[in-house]
Amino acid sequence: MKVALEAIDAVLPENAVKKALESDPFKERVSLGGKIVLVAIGKAAWRMAKAAFDSLNGLITDGVVITKYGHSMGEIGGVEICEAGHPVPDENTLKGTEKALKKLRGLSERDTVLFLVSGGGSALFEKPKEGVTLEDIADVTGQLLASGAGIVEINMIRKRLSAVKGGRFACLAGKAHVFAVVLSDVLGDRLDSIASGPAYPDATTVKDALRVIRKYGLSLRPQLLDTLREETPKELSNVTTVVTGSVKTLCTAASEAASKLGYKTLLLSTTLDCEAREAGAFIASIAREVNSTKNPLKPPCAIITGGETVVHVKGKGKGGRNQELALSSALGIRGLDRTVVISVGSDGTDGPTDAAGGLVDGSTIAVLEELGLDAEALLEDNDTYNALDACGCLVRTGPTGTNVNDLTILLCGDWS
Amino acid sequence: MKVALEAIDAVLPENAVKKALESDPFKERVSLGGKIVLVAIGKAAWRMAKAAFDSLNGLITDGVVITKYGHSMGEIGGVEICEAGHPVPDENTLKGTEKALKKLRGLSERDTVLFLVSGGGSALFEKPKEGVTLEDIADVTGQLLASGAGIVEINMIRKRLSAVKGGRFACLAGKAHVFAVVLSDVLGDRLDSIASGPAYPDATTVKDALRVIRKYGLSLRPQLLDTLREETPKELSNVTTVVTGSVKTLCTAASEAASKLGYKTLLLSTTLDCEAREAGAFIASIAREVNSTKNPLKPPCAIITGGETVVHVKGKGKGGRNQELALSSALGIRGLDRTVVISVGSDGTDGPTDAAGGLVDGSTIAVLEELGLDAEALLEDNDTYNALDACGCLVRTGPTGTNVNDLTILLCGDWS
Repeated sequence: MKVALEAIDAVLPENAVKKALESDPFKERVSLGGKIVLVAIGKAAWRMAKAAFDSLNGLITDGVVITKYGHSMGEIGGVEICEAGHPVPDENTLKGTEKALKKLRGLSERDTVLFLVSGGGSALFEKPKEGVTLEDIADVTGQLLASGAGIVEINMIRKRLSAVKGGRFACLAGKAHVFAVVLSDVLGDRLDSIASGPAYPDATTVKDALRVIRKYGLSLRPQLLDTLREETPKELSNVTTVVTGSVKTLCTAASEAASKLGYKTLLLSTTLDCEAREAGAFIASIAREVNSTKNPLKPPCAIITGGETVVHVKGKGKGGRNQELALSSALGIRGLDRTVVISVGSDGTDGPTDAAGGLVDGSTIAVLEELGLDAEALLEDNDTYNALDACGCLVRTGPTGTNVNDLTILLCGDWS
Repeated sequence: MKVALEAIDAVLPENAVKKALESDPFKERVSLGGKIVLVAIGKAAWRMAKAAFDSLNGLITDGVVITKYGHSMGEIGGVEICEAGHPVPDENTLKGTEKALKKLRGLSERDTVLFLVSGGGSALFEKPKEGVTLEDIADVTGQLLASGAGIVEINMIRKRLSAVKGGRFACLAGKAHVFAVVLSDVLGDRLDSIASGPAYPDATTVKDALRVIRKYGLSLRPQLLDTLREETPKELSNVTTVVTGSVKTLCTAASEAASKLGYKTLLLSTTLDCEAREAGAFIASIAREVNSTKNPLKPPCAIITGGETVVHVKGKGKGGRNQELALSSALGIRGLDRTVVISVGSDGTDGPTDAAGGLVDGSTIAVLEELGLDAEALLEDNDTYNALDACGCLVRTGPTGTNVNDLTILLCGDWS
């Protein structure tokens, strides 16, 4: 638990922003003496903005925060605070975005737009291109979601219908420099994907977009198809981007925390994206190997993976991907001594539950059996919340205010 | 490829048996000067028996080989060669088993039964308990298979209906010592599971068996239920068991071969048992990590897993679990330089195909696209054979004559 909590601490918006603003590139911008205009978007926008405002000590005099309803926590100097719809953008999204764009007017080369980006930024920052409406974008997004398209594909289409995404926001900043601080929730930190990359050159092309349209057989009106065919910026000379909190930071911090406690560590992946229960089975098979042959590491050891697994729901139960991974791994490590698997979402909210994830060990399944519960059947029903709740294996952190995907740690103690 | 082939070589029946017979415990038995009676069962029985006969140089004068139809390749001294049904036991299974039991009569303490066990032994070595018929066993096995029971569960039931399984064969050997050499195809080498453990104390109990019956709601006639309730031996003092070829040997040999070629190696698991395509995605996520952060190992490195993944077939295509794993990992390593994933079945036969598995790299998906093939769609249709065949990524070794599960190797070259 300590390892996981320390890791989450490292990716809290406040700590992440502070670290980024202490970097040399940002200090250089400050030394130019121009204006610093704040634009913060996403679910962590308020907390990132507050941290930036406080740590820059009066340097920020103007700006806009656009966050999800209920996510702002008071005034921040002269910064305008807007709340808007998420995951579906609404009228307030448009209003907030217009306010942000107004702040860009008349900026000079010496000025800096401090652009703080966090998860949810795609929905919370939007101005459709001319001739396109929010409803158009919602319709296309809906069609894509229903077809099983991934977030990268959805953003690929959505950004082309937008006047601020796919690098277009940075173009609108004109001569001013955009210093972007990104709290990443996209695996592999693809910067053109996070919040649909308002200040990042778009790596995808018209051809890619049309391929996605064909792949899922989307039906779009001709005006939208024309808009999709307008190419996005492929180069931006006025942007510096710092990825400050990401699943990599999360995993590295977990690794360091485990190291300090005397565990040998191995970071397997920060882009784990397979089915949650299968990831649990895979990790359990590593645990068995440590137990029987001391491979891949001699205990005491911590084997760390990060990413965002998926759950294809078939049952009617309650749970989340971290709980699914944890319960599945409990089946695989059954009977092993001093073996623990913890899997948590860094946002503290795993699926539609009040738990961040689960923490299981070699005795978890036996405990469930004593309670008359069949772990396999509960997993099959995707009812992992109730399974883990029954045996006291839920991890509850409360909402953490950050969102950089999930962390899974296999801890094997020394039994020699 | 070289690494995989060297690994398979280490688990060929001949090499595995030779190694076991050079061990001290066997030499001790030989030094007693008693008779050595050979009983070899399983798909590799003939090859194991031949290797034992040749390397013991005339010490074996009597014995029985029971293997699958078409799997014997000529005379072996005075040893009787029987072929029988697999995977469904038949009259010849019973006849062969009776012959083997006859050889046990009148043996003394000084005598040794050299018992060579390989995959398929469950079907090829059978004598139902009194009042039970082969049809009964077939019926129960069929019910279990249809209910989705695992091999461990199936064997748990089947062994209790048998007069030779679950340690009962060793009891029938009386005073003679049973020296068992096991080529393991059961993950984790649970010796009471391999060939249903004729010479190994049964770790499962009447209670376990009744739980399985309930779990799958099997319908059995009362006589069978009574037989199931007879406890199996829990201790055997006249048995020495050597596991000689197993997925562990396979993985260790792969690791050594990769090491010799200059790769740093990591053995993650020898009991991987999750869904094949999800294992491929997991391994690909490790490949991406090596590529981006040089974790868990700096290239050049080889990351090795062994086990027996599963495929839940939904499509109508042709393939096997290794091909499924390989194609899935190809999607995940798309675009990575000097990154190769090879996954092969040690028996050379992956699923109902003529391939042992697949070998893919970062360019595999692009090659398929150039051919107008959609790798995701082919994977969805379980048509991995045709996908990998189209791009020249199938691995064909031909039947190897051994069967110790699968080997997957991720190779990351040095691009610095």
